[in-house]
Amino acid sequence: MIVIGIDPGYAIVGIGVVEYNGNKFRPISYGAITTDAAMPTVDRLKRIYDEMTTLIDKYQPDAVAIEELFFNSNQKTAINVAQARGALLVAVKNKNIPIYEYTPLQVKQSVTGYGRADKTQVQQMVKMLLNLNVIPKPDDAADGLALAICHAHSSKINNMFDLNRVK
Amino acid sequence: MIVIGIDPGYAIVGIGVVEYNGNKFRPISYGAITTDAAMPTVDRLKRIYDEMTTLIDKYQPDAVAIEELFFNSNQKTAINVAQARGALLVAVKNKNIPIYEYTPLQVKQSVTGYGRADKTQVQQMVKMLLNLNVIPKPDDAADGLALAICHAHSSKINNMFDLNRVK
Repeated sequence: MIVIGIDPGYAIVGIGVVEYNGNKFRPISYGAITTDAAMPTVDRLKRIYDEMTTLIDKYQPDAVAIEELFFNSNQKTAINVAQARGALLVAVKNKNIPIYEYTPLQVKQSVTGYGRADKTQVQQMVKMLLNLNVIPKPDDAADGLALAICHAHSSKINNMFDLNRVK
Repeated sequence: MIVIGIDPGYAIVGIGVVEYNGNKFRPISYGAITTDAAMPTVDRLKRIYDEMTTLIDKYQPDAVAIEELFFNSNQKTAINVAQARGALLVAVKNKNIPIYEYTPLQVKQSVTGYGRADKTQVQQMVKMLLNLNVIPKPDDAADGLALAICHAHSSKINNMFDLNRVK
């Protein structure tokens, strides 16, 4: 199965594309959708929507995994990220790809086996699981890969009990 | 000029379509896009996106006016509304319609001439300005119409000074 993991954001959306077959991972691609702060909001949202659409057409994923959103204290950032996540969800849904969401805790637990792992530990595990020579950059891309890995790990139990599907 | 006013929401998106020519208003349509709480999030966002797209194709507006978002204390609601607003903005942008945003204060000031007007006063003025027999229901539709009126009132000065465009 091919999974696209998304670390949602507004200036930078982390993307990781992973293949998972017979308990083996293969990295296909990773990177980020970026939007320029000088661009108008709607142009940035449309860019996120369009780039996501292009990624789905290119990689034909079986599923998309996206991080669940929790709000921090900066309201302006929170609104922007949530609007961007809405654009991402519609782009994926318009291509009829099933979408799953995971909390940061689930991702850490799944990738490292330890729910309180720090960022560096998660990145080291991503590098190891995917047989990469270096830790993927930017951090957002590593987070995208971690989400894809988390979903692949969870896919069997998800299917058995209908878990983690975006509802 | 034809303006669609949008009161953004998740369960209910208020819509008002207004024509404004030579300082005269004509109501074209009003109502709401509603989404069922029993539907999955992505289906609700896609419905909002699709219905908005249909409204633009139908009414071919010159501009869309949408309320600016401020967060209340309920984080879950805030995320849902912001995601829905992201879906709405992408739908409008994908049709290349210019988008403007206004604060509740701007809408009240524009529609009633009084920034601290209450909901009922705004609704009465909407009814009067549009020559309606009754106050439009639901309240969200009246808010949509108020946003369209506010934009029509502001359109000359917007064009002169490039104001209120969503940036």
